[in-house]
Amino acid sequence: MAPPGVEPPRRMLLNAFSMNCVSHLQQGLWGRDDTRQREYASLEPWLDLARLLERGRFDALFLADVTGVYDVYRDGPETAIRHAMQVPANDPMLLVPALATVTEHLGLAFTSSVYQAHPFTFARQLSTLDHLTDGRVAWNVVASYLPNSAANLGFDALPAHDDRYDRADEYLDVCYQLWEGSWEDGAVLADRAAGVYADPARVHRIDHHGEHYRVAGPHLCEPSPQRTPLLFQAGSSDRGREFCGRHAECAFVISSLDGVGPLVDDVRTRAARHGRRPHDIRFFQALTPVVGGTEAEAMAKAAELGEQVSVEAGLAHLSGAVGADLGSLDPDRPLDQLRAEGVQGLVKRLVDSAPPGTRTVGDLIRSNATGRFTVGSAEQVADVMERFFHAGIDGFNLVYTTTPGTFVDVIDGVVPILRERGLVQTDYAPGPLRQKLFGHARLPDRHPGAAARR
Amino acid sequence: MAPPGVEPPRRMLLNAFSMNCVSHLQQGLWGRDDTRQREYASLEPWLDLARLLERGRFDALFLADVTGVYDVYRDGPETAIRHAMQVPANDPMLLVPALATVTEHLGLAFTSSVYQAHPFTFARQLSTLDHLTDGRVAWNVVASYLPNSAANLGFDALPAHDDRYDRADEYLDVCYQLWEGSWEDGAVLADRAAGVYADPARVHRIDHHGEHYRVAGPHLCEPSPQRTPLLFQAGSSDRGREFCGRHAECAFVISSLDGVGPLVDDVRTRAARHGRRPHDIRFFQALTPVVGGTEAEAMAKAAELGEQVSVEAGLAHLSGAVGADLGSLDPDRPLDQLRAEGVQGLVKRLVDSAPPGTRTVGDLIRSNATGRFTVGSAEQVADVMERFFHAGIDGFNLVYTTTPGTFVDVIDGVVPILRERGLVQTDYAPGPLRQKLFGHARLPDRHPGAAARR
Repeated sequence: MAPPGVEPPRRMLLNAFSMNCVSHLQQGLWGRDDTRQREYASLEPWLDLARLLERGRFDALFLADVTGVYDVYRDGPETAIRHAMQVPANDPMLLVPALATVTEHLGLAFTSSVYQAHPFTFARQLSTLDHLTDGRVAWNVVASYLPNSAANLGFDALPAHDDRYDRADEYLDVCYQLWEGSWEDGAVLADRAAGVYADPARVHRIDHHGEHYRVAGPHLCEPSPQRTPLLFQAGSSDRGREFCGRHAECAFVISSLDGVGPLVDDVRTRAARHGRRPHDIRFFQALTPVVGGTEAEAMAKAAELGEQVSVEAGLAHLSGAVGADLGSLDPDRPLDQLRAEGVQGLVKRLVDSAPPGTRTVGDLIRSNATGRFTVGSAEQVADVMERFFHAGIDGFNLVYTTTPGTFVDVIDGVVPILRERGLVQTDYAPGPLRQKLFGHARLPDRHPGAAARR
Repeated sequence: MAPPGVEPPRRMLLNAFSMNCVSHLQQGLWGRDDTRQREYASLEPWLDLARLLERGRFDALFLADVTGVYDVYRDGPETAIRHAMQVPANDPMLLVPALATVTEHLGLAFTSSVYQAHPFTFARQLSTLDHLTDGRVAWNVVASYLPNSAANLGFDALPAHDDRYDRADEYLDVCYQLWEGSWEDGAVLADRAAGVYADPARVHRIDHHGEHYRVAGPHLCEPSPQRTPLLFQAGSSDRGREFCGRHAECAFVISSLDGVGPLVDDVRTRAARHGRRPHDIRFFQALTPVVGGTEAEAMAKAAELGEQVSVEAGLAHLSGAVGADLGSLDPDRPLDQLRAEGVQGLVKRLVDSAPPGTRTVGDLIRSNATGRFTVGSAEQVADVMERFFHAGIDGFNLVYTTTPGTFVDVIDGVVPILRERGLVQTDYAPGPLRQKLFGHARLPDRHPGAAARR
């Protein structure tokens, strides 16, 4: 275990990936007997999950989010609502304080869009969470991409892609000023004899006057263990990667094994251009493990899950993600027919991506889900993870097919093998989440957020 | 115990009044050995407090809040910061999920200003909390009054008083549409065999286009136990009382015993004018109990607390509350001198309010704190509470001098007496918070929020 202030040796990081909703990424499975997805709105399944993850020495629970419905498919939210495809979706941030009561070390990461909350309010909420969790909170910074999110939050239309990142830059700038610059170290005296709690000379207004935000300050919170929460980001576009290279400490990626190297190198190079060190960023790959006692058992399990995948919900999800209505695609339509018609654009790319033997649109969408499964015995799944690790991935956001089943399978089956191989931690390092991952509790001086310090 | 749907008989209601900060209302006492105020930023004192209150069968923990610093006094926040006078102040909403993990029945009420969060985001957070707490959440609706709050949240200046209430009316209108109108009862089918979670025909956009807000919807949350959380409000101005009569289910007041009757009657009359029943509102009086084994012990305790009250922090608090800088008032200044100078306005009203024997400005500010104490044996404090109850007050927001000491004194000393007199509950009624208080879990049809239903 590395002492505080020393970067710990490279190890494989494990996050559970979930969302405060019925159905997150694998559509159509919420009705199974062996999943607790339908209980999402109550505390118990979340408390149980957090306890399980801490038993498995996971680094964090990572909660995704959206702030609108997927209504691109067939020009309305009907399909999403029918299949509980990320709607209903409760607020993820509000799980964090509850989960802190039953865990000591587990990181608690959640997604929040720069559109949904004013940065003054949000920065205060994050500081409060960082206090309540003893420094275990992480924020996944997103700029909304669903048109309905914009319409819910008072915008006529979603601002253009790059403009959204410009706004996100300013949003982070405001947050850094509040988190890093408003209360100096040593501002809090708590001098009971003198009756002085804090030294006003060391607490500062920020007086931010930007293009999107005006914030006076001072920050209402005294410094929390991490000050700035550990920052996750998942940009994949050029502008998104630039944002990632500048701000992110953990990057969430979805890549093929071959694509990992160039992707990671690109973002690390961008980080260096922003004055950071290439290895100031940890990369997390999405991975959906389907683990069986044997390979054959795992294959049978994957086949059963594949049968239950909802093609319609998958089309609705994909339509929202790519911003194009795939509602004209009949699931029973043979792909050969589409090819013969000479389809173009997104549909052509979809059809071209079909694995050999895929007959219909439905098969294709189903394989779009099951094709992301990593299927095998615990040993085989560990092998895949190790290959990603050696290719440059630091850790994984593990996607469930059933919850907590997927995580139980990993913790009881795969983790012991990864431990034997010396890849994952056997116990938690002390201190806040950033210290557990990087050896230091606060942002390093070379991070752009540190410029807000006095 | 009244069955669901039947209004329970009138009983005395008890809330603990606190704030997620070092020093809430009684300034200067945070350094005492026998208070846990300095631990406000961690979970433990709050979890312990919630368990204590549930043991005492309190109705709710009521958390106050501000979204800015008190910087009217001497034209800056220095005094507030030095004395931890409501700064630092962490977000109160984020305590709710944690407290829900250690309680089953306690109501969890918190303050949120209509300026701090967009109503779409906020309504979702409240629905999430209502789900996680099984319907125990209450919202104290406020329109900010501190100039620094406005400057923190992007406003050039605080809008005029009545405009703030107009904005609050629209804010609530948006929330009602999301909570009451977006998802019909019966929209959620969770039909596993058919693979249908919800019926899209019963989930509606709200398409609100108002003066301050534009919100498309649908609400992202399925209906929670209460739908609309139990609504607290504390308006005392004419416009504030009007708002209270229209929306509030619980009104927080600070009144003399003599003033209770007319105040309560006025708000009930306003409620009736809005089509509600006069008794659709419960009134909570602020009360600061200082309980001793005997009257003499209590007097000695109050005298000791009075000695420790911070006059400077009291002046800063009062300056912010009334919006006028009292910084020119030297605490050592004799009141007679001020009287001889013929002071006017607020200072004159302050001086005129001084109890007989008050010599200096400092004594006056100190008595402004201790004058609010209800001092006596448990029996005597119970007598005062009973007199308020018979005058028309339904319950109390109990202010601490030390925490949890004040609440321990009430629960172990005063509550048993109130129980013997048949005034307070001996056990909780089942169901959500509104059902515990009013006999029904949802807003009654005559509440204006019900108009948003389909």
